[in-house]
Parts: sequence; structure tokens; C-alpha cells
Amino acid sequence: MSKKLIGVDLGGTTIKFAILTAEGEIQQKWSVETNVLDEGSHIVPDIIESINHHLDLFGMTPDQFIGIGMGTPGTVDIENGTVEAAFNLNWKEKQELKKQIEEGTGMKFAVDNDANVAALGERWKGAGENDNEVTFVTLGTGVGGGVITNGEMVHGAGAGGEIGHVNVEPGGFLCTCGNKGCLETYASATGVVRVARHMAEEFAGNSELKQMLDNGEEISSKLVFDLAKADDVLAKLVVDKVCYYLGLACANIGSLLNPSFIVIGGGVSAAGSFLLDQVDAYFKKYAFPSVKKTTVLKLAELGNDAGVIGAASLALKFNN
Amino acid sequence: MSKKLIGVDLGGTTIKFAILTAEGEIQQKWSVETNVLDEGSHIVPDIIESINHHLDLFGMTPDQFIGIGMGTPGTVDIENGTVEAAFNLNWKEKQELKKQIEEGTGMKFAVDNDANVAALGERWKGAGENDNEVTFVTLGTGVGGGVITNGEMVHGAGAGGEIGHVNVEPGGFLCTCGNKGCLETYASATGVVRVARHMAEEFAGNSELKQMLDNGEEISSKLVFDLAKADDVLAKLVVDKVCYYLGLACANIGSLLNPSFIVIGGGVSAAGSFLLDQVDAYFKKYAFPSVKKTTVLKLAELGNDAGVIGAASLALKFNN
Repeated sequence: MSKKLIGVDLGGTTIKFAILTAEGEIQQKWSVETNVLDEGSHIVPDIIESINHHLDLFGMTPDQFIGIGMGTPGTVDIENGTVEAAFNLNWKEKQELKKQIEEGTGMKFAVDNDANVAALGERWKGAGENDNEVTFVTLGTGVGGGVITNGEMVHGAGAGGEIGHVNVEPGGFLCTCGNKGCLETYASATGVVRVARHMAEEFAGNSELKQMLDNGEEISSKLVFDLAKADDVLAKLVVDKVCYYLGLACANIGSLLNPSFIVIGGGVSAAGSFLLDQVDAYFKKYAFPSVKKTTVLKLAELGNDAGVIGAASLALKFNN
Repeated sequence: MSKKLIGVDLGGTTIKFAILTAEGEIQQKWSVETNVLDEGSHIVPDIIESINHHLDLFGMTPDQFIGIGMGTPGTVDIENGTVEAAFNLNWKEKQELKKQIEEGTGMKFAVDNDANVAALGERWKGAGENDNEVTFVTLGTGVGGGVITNGEMVHGAGAGGEIGHVNVEPGGFLCTCGNKGCLETYASATGVVRVARHMAEEFAGNSELKQMLDNGEEISSKLVFDLAKADDVLAKLVVDKVCYYLGLACANIGSLLNPSFIVIGGGVSAAGSFLLDQVDAYFKKYAFPSVKKTTVLKLAELGNDAGVIGAASLALKFNN
């Protein structure tokens, strides 16, 4: 029997696990809650215990696996298999993931950050069609992503792929990173709401979105897209602005890297082709002519599975 | 004796040649004029003849070489060793460079476009310190460049590295590519002059640059930088604007790829640290915090030799 992979997607709320074939087919999935108490000190033991428990359950042994791959929030040292500054896990100190998990499970272990791992997943088994040139942009609470060139993840000097911090409006909205005008401040779920609030202030026409904001109701990026689909004038202006910034960023990624695919995922991308078509129009407006013809914008296809699939692919390097 | 490399840098005016060691040390250099007559049909025969002639002259034989690498204008098909759309060479048809040059010289041949080859040169033996993560930006008649990640040139779907067409001012100056606001329209040699003309129109103060423009005198990007160094008020405003666009573009390259070095070369970069320091200030203003700490902006170091050195490095793949 050919050996298998384990993929782990560590998030602030749940830890997702999967057992996959070496070809990336998911055979088993499960998840546990993330216990961030006591400075996150339970997380690594919980991961080890959950893997060992499920191997027992399935009657499997470590020698049947190529290895374990994991995606984690924070700043990852890939060489040493450690992570720092994962604040939503309450990890204040550097975590020796590789050392602990290899000792605890008897399997080889590789790690990268969560956005990179999702990019690897979409590239391998999703919208990236296993191409060597794929950029992934994820529109969630923040905007993240991952860049794959010549079939390899780009880490640069460690912080490659900070797509959310590409500046699309110098002097624009203040970002959590301290700069002004980062893509994240316009195109994340919270960014969309911020754009809506900002544009509502100067908007005088008839709009349900405007009324809701004036009434102090809670709004979400989903609501803004839903209202835009229903022809709300202000909501359409907001979506146009968000898509302009995304299209401009995609055009500049295109001119620089000319990926075969720019894959857009994350919660905001649930707006589907309504979002993608408008982003694509601005992409085509700003991209270099030969890039418009060769770089294709697509929606992500794997949803929540991108993480475990991409994570598992990290362990393929142990396959020999 | 260890085998050597031949590097060829094909330009619209001259063809530069060099014989180098496998470590990238130039041992011989020569050049010939580019004969673009008769639809550029003399160029490839001239290259073959010049190489064969010089090998004779130096008493060397093809078996003493690993191979030939060449940089060329136009759209290069690296796999097949062909080039198209090299308009400044008068090449209207696809050119079978690899086939002809391998047959004509008896040596293996590899080719890439001129900007990529200069990037490889600066990465290998120049300001890139042979790092795996280097982006090269060349400010000449146009703005070009090359992106190296994980030690490999990024071609994407073929047109990777079009740094001059990163959009830094949506709706700005019209570019030869048809878009508006490309970096090239502000930061190339002609772009700097264009910015100067544009800003002079609204400038009312005391400025030699303003006077020269009003008098209809010819100005160059070098003159603008020289006047700025000499404290001309308008020239300083022009340089500030050019450096803003370059700094913004470098910041966005940094946030996306976090290269160890962004190397700035080409004629405009002759302004030296006067240019670099101002670009760096804007880079630091717009780049993601951890990118500011790890991506270093540098001036190119190899000048005209970057092309032949980088070209020669293409042939290293035949070394086995």
C-alpha cells in the first residue's frame, strides 16, 4: 500500500486534520477545538494526541505515512519548524513545533504559515490546476495570500506573500500594520464594511445600505454584496470601489509575475462571479497587455479543505 | 583546464561578447556593431562569425566551453530558443536563435530576454550577492527588470518581470503599452523629463530647470538630477515625485516577494545615492514592517557588464 500524508490546519477556533493519499485525495477528516488557554500550551499536545488517537482508531501506524504537514498562524521558521508571534493562539514564546510533533508522533513534520498552505492547496488540487505559476489571494478578516513561482512557494527573506499589505491607495485607510492604504483595509471583510461606512457619509441618494448605516445597524461584507446584487445604488458603488482595488492589485501582481492563475478565496469571495467579473474588468484595465491574455483570475475551489490539503503537500518532500 | 562560458548581450546598437570562467570572471571582452539592415538578417550570422573568429584568435576550440548564453530584446521562447517581436533589431519574423547558433558554433546555446539576463548578472556577480531572492529594476529608456525567487528566474506564463508596467498612478501618464500610470512613464529617462515638463507648467517659483523648459531647451533626466543636487527647487520636486513612484513600486514588490535585495540599475541610476536614499525613504514609508527590515535597496554594481555576465550564467545549466 502506498504511503499517506497527514495535513493539519491550525486555526484560532478549530484544528482541522485530514489523512490524504500522496496524490492529495482526502480519505479521512476530523477536527478538534483549539484550546488557547494557558498561553496556548495545550495546543501542541492536543495535536499529537489527536493524531495518535485517530491512527489507533483507523488501525494505522506511523510507518504508513510519508509525514505530517501543518499550516499555522504566526511567523514561521520553515528550516527549524518553529513559529512565533501567533497572537490568536496566545503563543507568546517561540514554539518548537517540529521537535515536539516529530517526537510525539514518530512521523516527519513540516510547517508553513496558514496563508501559504492554503495557496499550496488551491494550487495542487483546486483552481490552480497544479500549475507552476499561481498566486493566491484570500479575502477574510484580513487579506493574505501566497505566491508560487517555478513550482515553489516564495518566502523571500521570510515575509513573502504579504499581499494584503500591497499599497493600493497611498495615504488611504490606516492599516493595523501602521501603513496607510494597504489592500487589506479595503478588500477584507472588515475593509468592505469600512469602505461602505466611508462612502455612506457622502452619499445622498436612496439606498437601503445607507439607511441601515444611518440607523446604526450592524452590517457585514456579505450584506453589502447581497444589496449590490439587488441593485442598491450605494452598495454597488462600494463593491465597485473594492473591486477596483482588488483589480489594481491583481494587475500589478500580473505585471510583476505573470502567473497562470490568480486565485481569489476567503469569505468575501463567496460573492462569487459577481465579485470576480468586476475584479477582472479592473484587472484587464490595468494589467500589461500580454499579461491580460495569459493570467487568468479564478475563484478558489477547495473552501475550508485548502488548508489541510496544502499542509499535507508540505510533507511530500519526505517522499523518497 | 576547467571549461569556460561565452556571454552575448545583443542590443540595438552593439553586440557585446565575453569569455568567462565558470565562476563568472570575465577573461576576454569584445563587441561589434549591430547591423539591423535587411530585416536584421545579418545579426545571427554576425554573432556566429564573431564568436568563431575570436575563438580562432585566442587559439580556443568549442569543446573548451560549457556553452553560450545570450540576452536579446523581444519576446523569448526559452524552451525552443527562439525570439519574436524584437522591433529595435528589425526582426519581424520568429528567429531560430538556438538552432542557428548551435549549428554555427558547435556549442550549446541558451537565451533569455535582456532585462532578465541583466538581473541574473547583478544577482550572480553584482549587488545581488548571489542571493536566492533578488529583484532587479533597470531605469533606462524604458523601465524593465527581472525577478529571481528561490534562486530561479520568474518567467510566469512568459511575460514575468514587467516591472515598468506596474501601475503606480491609475489614470496617470499614457504609456506605450496603452495603459495609464505605468511606472515606466514616470521613472524611465524619458519619464523623468515628462514629469519635469508636467510639473513645470504649474510651477511659479525661481528655477533654472523651469527657465530651460520655458526657453525650449533640450533637457535630460541627468540634467534634472544634476539640478536637483544643486538645489534647484523645481528639479527637487521632480526628483521627489520620481522617487515616490519608485519607492511605492519597490514597497509593493517587497510586500509581495520580500526579496533580500531590490537592485536598481540603468542610466537613471547613475544619480547614485542621491536617488537611492530618496527611493528608500518612500520604500520605508509604504512597505510592510517586517519587509522594511529585511529587504535592502541597492544600486547595481556591474554597469554594462551585467548583460554578458548574466547571459553567460544561462549556459551554466549545460555544466555536468
